[in-house]
Amino acid sequence: MLVALDWGTSNLRAYLMSAEGAVVETRRAARGILHLPAPAGVGGFERAFADIAGDWVRSDSKRSVIAGGMVGSAQGWIEAPYVHTPADVRTLAAHAARVPSGLGPDVLIAPGVLFEPADGPPDVMRGEEIKIAGAIAAEPSLGARAWFVLPGTHSKWAFVRGQRIVSFSTYMTGELYAVLREHSIPGRLMPPAPADERDSALGFDAGLAAARASSPGDLGHQLFAARTLGLTGRLPRNALAEYLSGLLLGNELVSALAASRVTREDGAPLVLLGDAALCRRYARALEVFGAAADAQLDDTAARGLWEVARAAGLV
Amino acid sequence: MLVALDWGTSNLRAYLMSAEGAVVETRRAARGILHLPAPAGVGGFERAFADIAGDWVRSDSKRSVIAGGMVGSAQGWIEAPYVHTPADVRTLAAHAARVPSGLGPDVLIAPGVLFEPADGPPDVMRGEEIKIAGAIAAEPSLGARAWFVLPGTHSKWAFVRGQRIVSFSTYMTGELYAVLREHSIPGRLMPPAPADERDSALGFDAGLAAARASSPGDLGHQLFAARTLGLTGRLPRNALAEYLSGLLLGNELVSALAASRVTREDGAPLVLLGDAALCRRYARALEVFGAAADAQLDDTAARGLWEVARAAGLV
Repeated sequence: MLVALDWGTSNLRAYLMSAEGAVVETRRAARGILHLPAPAGVGGFERAFADIAGDWVRSDSKRSVIAGGMVGSAQGWIEAPYVHTPADVRTLAAHAARVPSGLGPDVLIAPGVLFEPADGPPDVMRGEEIKIAGAIAAEPSLGARAWFVLPGTHSKWAFVRGQRIVSFSTYMTGELYAVLREHSIPGRLMPPAPADERDSALGFDAGLAAARASSPGDLGHQLFAARTLGLTGRLPRNALAEYLSGLLLGNELVSALAASRVTREDGAPLVLLGDAALCRRYARALEVFGAAADAQLDDTAARGLWEVARAAGLV
Repeated sequence: MLVALDWGTSNLRAYLMSAEGAVVETRRAARGILHLPAPAGVGGFERAFADIAGDWVRSDSKRSVIAGGMVGSAQGWIEAPYVHTPADVRTLAAHAARVPSGLGPDVLIAPGVLFEPADGPPDVMRGEEIKIAGAIAAEPSLGARAWFVLPGTHSKWAFVRGQRIVSFSTYMTGELYAVLREHSIPGRLMPPAPADERDSALGFDAGLAAARASSPGDLGHQLFAARTLGLTGRLPRNALAEYLSGLLLGNELVSALAASRVTREDGAPLVLLGDAALCRRYARALEVFGAAADAQLDDTAARGLWEVARAAGLV
């Protein structure tokens, strides 16, 4: 009935879905928008689409196709400009862009979301709004009011009220970790091999503790400790990468927990959403900070795409 | 009388000095400890030394040689282990390491300094202690009590009391800027060419303002604005690199000004020490933060090395 594409920067996931929204088949390819096959431009998108889902479309020409994520960015197949908060699946459907798939049906591409707070710089998401829509569909009680935390290269903390995303903040936690681990002077002390469980926990907990004691502006100083703790033997070198991870994740929690405190104390649950291993790391850190997550969900992108398709009248 | 070597990671500076501590001649080479000539190991140091100062030593075999900076690190010519705070030129002289120069006189290599606060991770410096010693010799009133700010890849904020370095903090401001500009996703939006003066000031001031409004842990979120401000056209792309610079420098100021507040309000002057252009950037930011620097000094390494040599009985 529906072909749904979760199309990000690094990966492309394709779902064949029934009229009731059930996933019949799942495929995955390392064909994110920065890793497309030749030819360059629109042709690369058409080729990647045909490779992953061509047989699904050819075997039933009535199948609709929907996509979400970076595929709708300025570097995507066609740009689906950001919609403003508050945004729900109807907003996303109403502002979706349409592009010929090259195989018959058009592809409907969902836009990202732009949040412009009164007192700070704007923030953007592309793809996370789909996962949030899927989570709300899977657990309708969360649509009334909840904080969704989506860990990743650019972690998102999004507040939902009345089924709509009303505000969110991005933290560059995953990217900072990767960039500092690979390219910084403290990173040179970190062995490439992963540490054993004991050293990992030692480093991670020490990083969380340092972050928890943060005053404003401290991160640039705290990061240097990833070098000095190794130089002076206070932490085994094996533990330094986890120290860095705990420090960066802990800084995210210090900031985002403060920003979400009022609504959380007023009863809004905290929901971890995304890759299970990464969510477990966040769950552990949240416990250390005295703010345990209320729920953890994964694989909600297909359901979110189906909801947008339904709002657009495709299913 | 004295050959003094300021030998860092990237550069080597050599000074020929009189018995009175005056600089007679200065030479500079891109022969920091990570950029030595062949052969590897001790031979590379001997060769770089002979290249830059061989004629000075051969023409007068009574000339003493002193060196400071990363040349005394574990990756240096010979390791001169860190001395603990409080540290002055006598401490540095007493714990200097001695290595044959390959040309007659030995080279006396000053150690770095280790600070172990009761309530946080240890911190280290190598080379900055020499510049501080030179600044105190040049302006003796600063030895009684002062904050020295040494901007750079790893900026240092050092507190001196009674001629001794008693505490200090490192901020990875310069390294964070370089790494994020070159390797991060927000960095991709920043054109390689420098901006004109107007866009530079616009970006730098916006970054400082964002930093000034920091709550604990905010940096990972603030950094994403270097992308969203460009994506949404709120800042010209030409201004984004300066926004990043202002944001990182501003975070350093927020943290370090708070940590130094009590002693500064009690009358300790704030002294900028180092490269003049970089110090001007810090001076401007400090003014925006309402904490103007009381003095600015440059080129104090030779004088500092001479003071350590004198304390060691070399001159």
